[in-house]
Amino acid sequence: MSRQGNRAGDPRKVNGELFTLTYGALVAQLIKDYENDEQVNKQLDKMGYNMGVRLIEDFLARANTGRCNDFRETADVIAKVAFKMYLGLTPVVSNWSTTGDEFSLLLESNPLTEFVELPPGHANLNYSNLLCGALRGALEMVQMDVDVRFVQDILKGDNITEIRLKFIKRLEDAVPVGED
Amino acid sequence: MSRQGNRAGDPRKVNGELFTLTYGALVAQLIKDYENDEQVNKQLDKMGYNMGVRLIEDFLARANTGRCNDFRETADVIAKVAFKMYLGLTPVVSNWSTTGDEFSLLLESNPLTEFVELPPGHANLNYSNLLCGALRGALEMVQMDVDVRFVQDILKGDNITEIRLKFIKRLEDAVPVGED
Repeated sequence: MSRQGNRAGDPRKVNGELFTLTYGALVAQLIKDYENDEQVNKQLDKMGYNMGVRLIEDFLARANTGRCNDFRETADVIAKVAFKMYLGLTPVVSNWSTTGDEFSLLLESNPLTEFVELPPGHANLNYSNLLCGALRGALEMVQMDVDVRFVQDILKGDNITEIRLKFIKRLEDAVPVGED
Repeated sequence: MSRQGNRAGDPRKVNGELFTLTYGALVAQLIKDYENDEQVNKQLDKMGYNMGVRLIEDFLARANTGRCNDFRETADVIAKVAFKMYLGLTPVVSNWSTTGDEFSLLLESNPLTEFVELPPGHANLNYSNLLCGALRGALEMVQMDVDVRFVQDILKGDNITEIRLKFIKRLEDAVPVGED
């Protein structure tokens, strides 16, 4: 599906349960389509990446945040602005590595998994992996190569949901294909 | 995916563009999986039905509307309460049949199709068919057998998006399986 038009006015909000069920239908379809959880995770990450690449433009236009000076600022913008804007929640930024190139987003709740139980036999499924892909795609568009992955998930019985972000490298400013 | 827990407090809202892109990923996946548009339409309707069956409980709890006395009241509740609550818009109820058993919902905009263009070769795809299924499923749970289908779609070049609802029959009050 391609996109057209420009974005004007306030973003429309939709009901969270409708979103949860739609996302659940997507994951269920992928489980039918792919042989194992790893492939489903990969596909969700890829889909999320494509979304992140698209959402970042809208995000930068709306969020009115300046360029981040370091990874700590990036972490704050992701948690306090981006998650708030898109999912209506603010994860806690935590578990910084001593070198400052890794941190975790801690989520006490996750709208993607509300009322969801993992079906049996899917212990390796990262149900919400779309989020990792979306973060990776969006960050790539602002010239940051970042590894994003789930390390804990309430859905798997962990006490908290933890997404780990590791800064890999700064990407060269590239001129997007088809633009001046 | 099954559900658990109870619903307390205000429903969470999520960003409409995130929803649009997630729904787009679902439709794109179904297009890959099924041979023709008719099968994709059927699958979307089925997924929507399963959502409608689940959402109705939440809807009745939140909407605080009483039992509808006739199909005209039902039409108003769908347009003014349900669409507003779930998609943030209010379709116009129109084109009543003389016998009062059929009406249309007219949508000038549709969050499912925002920024979407149909890929070539999918003239028969009812991209937003999930909505028909959801309405059908939800109405069945309040003992109404209703036929729901798209008759016009802006995505296909029509001037407006029109969903037609035709009352078929009243269903017997049935005790849901597993409940008293």
